[in-house]
Amino acid sequence: MYLSKLFIPITKSLPSEAKIKSHQLMLRTGMIKQSSAGIYSWLPLGYKVMKKIEQIVREEQNLIGAQEMLMPTIQSSEIWKESGRYDDYGEEMLKIKDRQGREMLYGPTNEELVTDIFRSSIKSYKSLPQLLYHIQWKFRDEIRPRFGVMRCKEFYMKDAYSFDLSDEDAKKSYNKMFYSYLKTFDRMGLKAIPMAADTGPIGGDLSHEFVILAETGESKIYADKNICEINLNQYELTDTSLQKMREDFTNIYAVTDEKHNPEKFNKNVKKENQMITKGIEVGHIFYFSDKYSKPMNCLIDDKDGKKTSVKMGSYGIGVSRLVGAIIEANYNNDVMKWPKSISPYDVVIIPSISKNNRENLEKAEKIYNELKKQNIDVLLDDVDENMSNKFKKHDLIGIPYQIIIGSKSEVNNFEFKELNFKSEQLSLDKILKKLKS
Amino acid sequence: MYLSKLFIPITKSLPSEAKIKSHQLMLRTGMIKQSSAGIYSWLPLGYKVMKKIEQIVREEQNLIGAQEMLMPTIQSSEIWKESGRYDDYGEEMLKIKDRQGREMLYGPTNEELVTDIFRSSIKSYKSLPQLLYHIQWKFRDEIRPRFGVMRCKEFYMKDAYSFDLSDEDAKKSYNKMFYSYLKTFDRMGLKAIPMAADTGPIGGDLSHEFVILAETGESKIYADKNICEINLNQYELTDTSLQKMREDFTNIYAVTDEKHNPEKFNKNVKKENQMITKGIEVGHIFYFSDKYSKPMNCLIDDKDGKKTSVKMGSYGIGVSRLVGAIIEANYNNDVMKWPKSISPYDVVIIPSISKNNRENLEKAEKIYNELKKQNIDVLLDDVDENMSNKFKKHDLIGIPYQIIIGSKSEVNNFEFKELNFKSEQLSLDKILKKLKS
Repeated sequence: MYLSKLFIPITKSLPSEAKIKSHQLMLRTGMIKQSSAGIYSWLPLGYKVMKKIEQIVREEQNLIGAQEMLMPTIQSSEIWKESGRYDDYGEEMLKIKDRQGREMLYGPTNEELVTDIFRSSIKSYKSLPQLLYHIQWKFRDEIRPRFGVMRCKEFYMKDAYSFDLSDEDAKKSYNKMFYSYLKTFDRMGLKAIPMAADTGPIGGDLSHEFVILAETGESKIYADKNICEINLNQYELTDTSLQKMREDFTNIYAVTDEKHNPEKFNKNVKKENQMITKGIEVGHIFYFSDKYSKPMNCLIDDKDGKKTSVKMGSYGIGVSRLVGAIIEANYNNDVMKWPKSISPYDVVIIPSISKNNRENLEKAEKIYNELKKQNIDVLLDDVDENMSNKFKKHDLIGIPYQIIIGSKSEVNNFEFKELNFKSEQLSLDKILKKLKS
Repeated sequence: MYLSKLFIPITKSLPSEAKIKSHQLMLRTGMIKQSSAGIYSWLPLGYKVMKKIEQIVREEQNLIGAQEMLMPTIQSSEIWKESGRYDDYGEEMLKIKDRQGREMLYGPTNEELVTDIFRSSIKSYKSLPQLLYHIQWKFRDEIRPRFGVMRCKEFYMKDAYSFDLSDEDAKKSYNKMFYSYLKTFDRMGLKAIPMAADTGPIGGDLSHEFVILAETGESKIYADKNICEINLNQYELTDTSLQKMREDFTNIYAVTDEKHNPEKFNKNVKKENQMITKGIEVGHIFYFSDKYSKPMNCLIDDKDGKKTSVKMGSYGIGVSRLVGAIIEANYNNDVMKWPKSISPYDVVIIPSISKNNRENLEKAEKIYNELKKQNIDVLLDDVDENMSNKFKKHDLIGIPYQIIIGSKSEVNNFEFKELNFKSEQLSLDKILKKLKS
């Protein structure tokens, strides 16, 4: 893609409500545009990043055997009345009347709808366990939307649901998701810490939040540093190994504000390991047993032919929120550097261009075509602008690798720079190797 | 995927409102489940097909230089008041009041929102032309939703928007989309005929519908058979070639009911070439010049620094509707056969299984693993059921290729069958070649 063709409207004057750095950066680099309070359009640059995050989430869900489906955004109020949440959920639920006066709503979450699908589909323990997920837009009518995509009204979320015969089996599903979440965030270059959490309006008695460390986070967290040192590669996708994994994580002190116990913290965690900081919630998992299946009469025949309420859990990852969270974690000292796995482009070519000399641009175009042939997703900055402005701009756009075509270019070597590192002179072959590694 | 694990709830008793064959088949094979009138959940099998259609649409849009973005589902009424459509659109618009009493709506289309994004982003003719598209859920509050996903309330649609300086340039964008649409439908195994159409609530004076032939279609069509014979490969992606392409197509008589002129039809089309049949609209393109940009004050500086309203067109493909339309076009004599490019799986292995003999299942599993290694997306029917039932079931699921492991299996050859053709004995190597070709 040539930068001059890319639809990337830069917002120069930031609105006063853009208080945190992810919100500012996303406006500055034309990733999003607000369409109304707390509702955003995703412009090409932001959209590409979000899609890459979505794809990592999808792949990791598929790896644990979860099946993708898609529930609609608009739901009937009927099922929410069955579960008892229609009145309980509060004003954040966007209630709608259709032209025939029927009470509908824009789904803020999908426990009821997935239970409704399940109860009419699966009747026997033989079809269990089941893990279903979808990645769909949700709506919460926040009274005070803020922080850009971090706390907005219309947001993109992966939510998964597990169905098991017994509590014991259900916890195996819970552990699988726990593992999948850690792997998912790891692939995005994030250190996510699982923390025992309250269950809120979803319900249940077992729940973990996955929190990444960021000073601008909304959650205050208290943790033993050692939790960051657990190596995920030691576990495998078996019930025993995953049970050990969850114990290894939950045996180490790591909680948010609401569950913090100063006495226990000081007793169990050495002073030098005590970590008190802020974080951003990027995932939340719940086990709530028959909280929905019981009132909604979602029954399964067990081995003896006896009917029993299916045991359920739900598992959310905020896909659109992650875009903001990853910026909060990676945007420092006026330089944003996207993790390679979710960068909008693999590399950007930055030629020094002047009206009288198109040589650098031509050189850049040659390299561009070479890289395209090799399936490298490359951006070419063909804008006629001085190099210092270009560098400032690309410090914000955040593509981790740059090929700079200017005074330092040699015949067969090019200036190659990884953001936050010094540049080096490399042949195109060596550059290709670096990009593909 | 093992069929016994796949979440594929078969609906045995069809509801009375399932009158057309696509609606019936989608319920029978567990592709969708209705959640409320005209609103469906997409279960794994249906979801896979829809995603493949979406991906073909995306690739063809990208090939003509359109850039993907994503606008939200919920829009403010303000911009619709600016364009004058808020009151005009009628009761199919789902109007919503948020908790603060603001008038919002669930977007039935996006001309206003994209114009709003554009006017605050692009100021100069130098940034033109622009083609933007998104693939997003839309809502039309149909009074009488019917025909399953073909006329439902919440539907998935690709809509693109072009922005040009002059009418002349805008028609070049229009031609690009015209070409892209023909290629898109062709890749799905569909013969889509472009027909001059009325513009309806979108407006403008140049518009084409893309219609596929199907007896159950809602549109009556009158056409010269020769329009089906035009070879798309003779055109290339240049303005001149695409202009010729549009002329070649539009010089041949092909219209829907509303534009039909019997006299002209009989005069211009030989009796033996007259085709009077029914069709399903799968795409619709519009050129409406400054219909939105003028009232919404979306201005561009031209070469002389004079401000002028940008010239716009819009271009829709019904992605979820296409799933139904493709079934209508391909489900005949109780056999559904998915076009290879959008089949939910590349191939299904059907072993004859009995309780006392697991040999066939083991053989099937070996082949399954071989195919998986080769990146073939394979379904293994490991259900303990007699072969005649299995075949009936797979005639509906519609995977175009089958490997049958039963009495006819030889040591190194397997029974390979393409739906609607006779089976043959082939080595695994030859089967692989067929699947990959």
